[in-house]
This record gives sequence, C-alpha cells and structure tokens, in this order.
Amino acid sequence: MALIVQKYGGTSVADAERIKHVARRIARTREAGNEVVVVVSAMGDTTDDLIKLAQQICDKPDSRELDVLLSTGEIVASTLVTMALHGMDYPAISLSGAQAGIQTDSSYSRARILKVESQRVKSELDKGNIVIVAGFQGITNGMDVTTLGRGGSDTTAVALAASLGAGVCQRYTDTEGIYTADPRVVPEARRLPEIGYDEMLELATYGNKVIHPRAVELGELYNVPILVASSFTDRPGTLIHGGPFMEVRNKARSVAYDLDVAKITVVGVPDRPGIAAAIFEALARAGVSVDTIVQNASINNITDLSFTVAKSQLAKAMEVVRPIAKTIGARECTSDDKLGKVSIIGAGMQNTPGYAARMFGTLSEKGINIELITTSEIRITCIIEEAKVKDAVLALHRAFELEKED
Amino acid sequence: MALIVQKYGGTSVADAERIKHVARRIARTREAGNEVVVVVSAMGDTTDDLIKLAQQICDKPDSRELDVLLSTGEIVASTLVTMALHGMDYPAISLSGAQAGIQTDSSYSRARILKVESQRVKSELDKGNIVIVAGFQGITNGMDVTTLGRGGSDTTAVALAASLGAGVCQRYTDTEGIYTADPRVVPEARRLPEIGYDEMLELATYGNKVIHPRAVELGELYNVPILVASSFTDRPGTLIHGGPFMEVRNKARSVAYDLDVAKITVVGVPDRPGIAAAIFEALARAGVSVDTIVQNASINNITDLSFTVAKSQLAKAMEVVRPIAKTIGARECTSDDKLGKVSIIGAGMQNTPGYAARMFGTLSEKGINIELITTSEIRITCIIEEAKVKDAVLALHRAFELEKED
Repeated sequence: MALIVQKYGGTSVADAERIKHVARRIARTREAGNEVVVVVSAMGDTTDDLIKLAQQICDKPDSRELDVLLSTGEIVASTLVTMALHGMDYPAISLSGAQAGIQTDSSYSRARILKVESQRVKSELDKGNIVIVAGFQGITNGMDVTTLGRGGSDTTAVALAASLGAGVCQRYTDTEGIYTADPRVVPEARRLPEIGYDEMLELATYGNKVIHPRAVELGELYNVPILVASSFTDRPGTLIHGGPFMEVRNKARSVAYDLDVAKITVVGVPDRPGIAAAIFEALARAGVSVDTIVQNASINNITDLSFTVAKSQLAKAMEVVRPIAKTIGARECTSDDKLGKVSIIGAGMQNTPGYAARMFGTLSEKGINIELITTSEIRITCIIEEAKVKDAVLALHRAFELEKED
Repeated sequence: MALIVQKYGGTSVADAERIKHVARRIARTREAGNEVVVVVSAMGDTTDDLIKLAQQICDKPDSRELDVLLSTGEIVASTLVTMALHGMDYPAISLSGAQAGIQTDSSYSRARILKVESQRVKSELDKGNIVIVAGFQGITNGMDVTTLGRGGSDTTAVALAASLGAGVCQRYTDTEGIYTADPRVVPEARRLPEIGYDEMLELATYGNKVIHPRAVELGELYNVPILVASSFTDRPGTLIHGGPFMEVRNKARSVAYDLDVAKITVVGVPDRPGIAAAIFEALARAGVSVDTIVQNASINNITDLSFTVAKSQLAKAMEVVRPIAKTIGARECTSDDKLGKVSIIGAGMQNTPGYAARMFGTLSEKGINIELITTSEIRITCIIEEAKVKDAVLALHRAFELEKED
C-alpha cells in the first residue's frame, strides 16, 4: 500500500460543494489502494477576512496573536473535509498542525519547521483513518501556535511527505500545472509533464507564482516528488522531481516574468571593500528584500551599483540608501519603478551556447532595451521596461519554440 | 493584588466595537490594581454559523470533528480581545482551552472538566500579562480538543477561578443580573443584589436562563462567588455566593417559569416494586431527560404515574413508554403538551409555613388549575396550563410582594 500526501488550496475548499468534491477525490485515491494524508488551506478568502477583522481592532496586531487567529482558518477547513469523508462513510480524522507534530521555531508569521513528530499521524493511518491536517501552522516547544508564512500549506505537505516517506506529494489548486509560459500571456503555452527541482526553483523565484520556492526546496532536500495539478479537472499536471528525465532536455523550458520590479542605482561609488556591505546590511536591517544586484566593472576605481527591490519597498529602500550613498561619497542615487523582469529557464541551457545571444537578439528585434542582465547556470534574466514585459514573453516563447514538445 | 476572573458572553464580543468596549472594561479592572484572567465566548452567532456550515457538508457531523470546529470560535474571540488590549498598550496574551490547562474527559460535545493545570496561566500572570482564555473548550489527555456543552464558557471561568484561587468570577452578558421575576413578564421585577448558590441552582433549573446550573454548582463546590452583571452598563449586578447574607431572608426570593413542559401520565399502574425503574431506565437509554416525576398515593394497589419532559422529546418518550405500559398492565398512557411550570424559590421559605398555601390560593383566585405540584426545601413548583403561565408569574410576584426590598 502506497502512502500519498495530497494538498488542497483555498479555492479548492472554498465552499461546501467544493469540499464535497475534494472529499470524492480523496476517496478515489483511497479506493485505489493508498494510505492518504491530506493537508488543507483555509477556505477561500478566510485568511484575508480574519486579517481584516484583526485590523478593525488593532492597527498592528501582535504577530503571536495573529498566528493563533489565522491558524483557525485551516483548522475549520480540516474538520469540514473530514466530515465530508464521514458523510461518504470513509474513516477520517482531522489534526491541527500541533497534533500532526509540525514543530517550528517561534518566528511568528514566518515560522520555519524544525522537525515533524509524525507518530500521531502514523497511528491514525494504522487505525485505517484518512488523516486531514490543517496546513500553514505549527507549534513551538513552548506550545504556542505559529504560522509558516507564504507557501505555508505547501511546506506542511512536503514536510509531512518527507517525514512519512510518502511516494509523492500531490498539490492541487486551481491551476493545471507548470507551463512553458503564463497561458494568459502566451496562448500557445504548453503544460510541462515534468520539471526538475532546480528549474522549478528558478521559475518560482523569477515570477511563476504556481508554487512557492520554499516547498520546492524542501522537496529537493528530501527528494519528495511534487505533483502540481488542478483539483477541478483530471488532467495529469506537472511532476516536479529530481530526475532522471526521459526526454531530451537540451533546450529552454519556460519563460517567467515578474512585473513587481523597481531598480535603485548608486552612481559613482568608490570601488573599495566594505561599500556593498554597508549598503546591503542597512537594507537587511530595515527589512528590505533585495533581489538582483549588479555592479559594473569599475573605471578609475569608480563604479555604479544597481539592485532591484519590490515596488512597495522602493521608498523605504531609498530612505536607507540615500544617506549611506552620501557618506561613502557616491555621486547620486537614482531609481526607476517602471520595470519588469523576463527570464528563460532550462537545465538544458547550462552547457549549450547561444541561448543568451538568442534572447538578447529577440528583445532587440522587438525594440526592447535591456536595463540589467543577470544569469545563473540554468537561467538568463533581463530587466526591461514594465510595459514591454508581456511582448517580451510572447516573443521569447516563439523564438525558443517552447510550444513544441520536448 | 487581587486576582479576578471575568467572563464575557457572545453578545458582549459580537463585533469589533464591542470587543474594544470589553477591552476597556478589562483595562479598568487592571487599573484598579487587580490581576485579571478573562474567559470569552465566541462572537455573536459564530457557533450557530459553524454548526450550519457543518450540516451543509454532513447530516450528522461527527462529534469529535464538530468540537474541533466549534472550538475555533472562542479562539478567534480570545485573540481579538487580546489585540484590543494591545491596541490600548496593555500586556496581554490569549490561550486556548488546551494551553490554559482545561483537561477534560473525552465525551465530545459535553465534556466534563477533570482538572485545571493552571501553570501556564500563572506564569503569564507572573509576567504581568492579562490572560485571555478561549472558553467552552478543553483537551483530553490524548491531546484531542473537546467542548464543554451548554454553559461551557461559564464553567471554564468558574473552574479557572477555583483553580487560581480568584476572589470572584465576574460573568458579564447582556443581562443585568438575577431578578425577582423575568422583567419582560413582570414590569415591577427587581434585581436581587445577592442570592445563595442553592437558590440560584433551583432558579436556573426551573427556568431562569441567565446562568447555567452547571457553573453555579461548580461555584458552590469550590466556594467561588459569581457576579452576574451586564457588560453594557455599570450597574452592580447580582452576586451569587454561599452567605452569610446580610439581609433578612425570611421570604420568597424569585419567581421562575418554564414554557417547555409536556406531561405523560401512565394511568392505572399496578403499585409494585420495579415498575418505575422499568419506565425510567428505558427513557434514559433512549436519551430522554425526565424532569418532574409525581406518583399519586395508590388505591387498591393501583396508582397513576406522571412525569414531565421537554416538548421536543414528547413523541420519543411516548414511543418508549407505550409498550412498557402495556407490558406492566397499565390502563392507558396519556399526554399533554400545552403545559408550563411556575416556581417560587427562596431559602427563607424552608422553615416558614404558609408559602405553599399562599401560592395555591393565588393561582386559584386567578382561575388557574394546578396539574402537578412538586417541592424542594426551598422551592414550590406548580405545573399549569401553558397559556396561563405568564398571568401566574405576575400574580405570584404581587402576592409575595417581591417588588419590595428584602
């Protein structure tokens, strides 16, 4: 008997009908002869509604209290899915994150899982139960409730799959898998039947919002294959795994984009040790997440330093950087908040020349100016004008013939 | 520094504004130099809404799952009250029933408290926190969430007060205390400044819904004075305690009534041992709660046996009783579901003759026929026609001059 961990997102359990539909899918997995552990998110907009309620009461709700409040959303969903299974005469039991042994540090609102004490889950499986676990939450060793932050329920599911030695973590939402590009932008975009962890990590980090990089990282660390599929259809989805891959992979796999990009350039920076550290340590202390960093080659020991941040953090970042720029003797500090990112990603790119040239050529043909370039072994990213990002995605998808089967 | 336990009901925390109002009351208690532990119910109709949601999914929700589901309502309220205190710069922390150490048996939906392990509450008080506890819930030694059933949050509050050695348990709802009669029926009804546990128990059992007898029983057992007052006014409320009482008590204290009464009479029962047992054991097995039982003196070893049940249980009770009546050779089985109960209650009645006579006389003057009479040391109850109950309450309140100060 195989053990399968499934995870259903908020839209999949948004109302009573959808919860019954999800229960039927779970029952089918059970009928196929599997042990099943299910992780659920909160119903529909529950989490946002609870946050609004808290803000009606207190401008800046305490993070411990907010975590306890939000954790109730997933608990509610877990009991309802369990009741739906009971209604179909399947043995099932709900467990909170604490009961399922999801032990975390005490960083409220963004707790990290320290370990999973899965005895209770195992004993319920041994009793023949389908186990429905409230996602997104854990408990500290002081018995305080925490939430895991963004990507939390996915992380719960992958962590449970790793701890229980499940064969696969099946993650169901309202999207059908990972595509060669966002199908809303590229009509001919094609679903990928499989993708590597490293490729998926780059995709997720560079704009594909289907799955949070954190869950993918954990899957890679414990070698848990993650199926990304829709709970509303029976289409096969995309399997994220570590290989080996059956197909020829000598090509780009997917185009990602991200419209939430603002750039800061510190112009005329003396090129001496400690300058970059002074800037980025100050930003980190202020809670600004810095994304891409590019420093040009210096001329006469003077260089320009550019980096990108989320648009919502631009004002705060400028406040931090301006006085430092002055102190270190930089000429000026400029910013641009009308930018976006476009990336091509594929493990097959790493030993194959010509991808970068083709990418830059394609953008150039479309009259798109490149502001910054950064690359990894399996990714090339160009920062361009925000208004031209979708054109760029379409053009790159065609230039790399991503609509064709691998 | 005195320790005070306060409990706020669902209407007192029904929305953000009321929650802030409750927080101001709590803060005032703190400012008066007290340590404060607060027990809260779920906001407004939350519990009913959650039950409806469960019933959309499953006709008969499993009681373990329903308990987990319902427990979230009080947890939500506890975090919001805590946030409201934070918003006013008071140190506060919310605890679930489990965290507050409310240990129960595993009778889901009507769990009994086995003990209160109050170390966590004490340590939070020692840190200077106001402690806000989610009422109505506990945890089994297997770490499963339970709910305490009717009167649950009141019971949590009194149990915590007993365990912590609090000087008083202040219970705030939308009613201003215990009255000499229901003020909606008797305009001149008067709030009682204090009442004994035993009197309150009789009142609560015989129709006064202001506080559940279970919490009063627990208060009596551990000698915790319970103040019943309104969270919407600053009026003084009613203190339920064990005495001594300052006032002259040689009179009736309050009139209670209950409209939910149906009567079954088994006519022509052979008066021999075991007959009553056969009937009432069968009713208990069927889950029918029997209230008043009256058996007339037998003539020629034949008697009539009458008892009352809630109207909603009449049909079920008749199904159980009819075949037994046949088996034991009773003549017939009759029922009446148009009845009500009216009671006068007062510790001062117990050694004073004349109360029963005055009660029966008053009812007779009003042309009200008495169907059944039962009494305890401090209570006289008459079962009468339902339509005449309110007239009876008014008449008795006047006959016993309850509007006058003690």
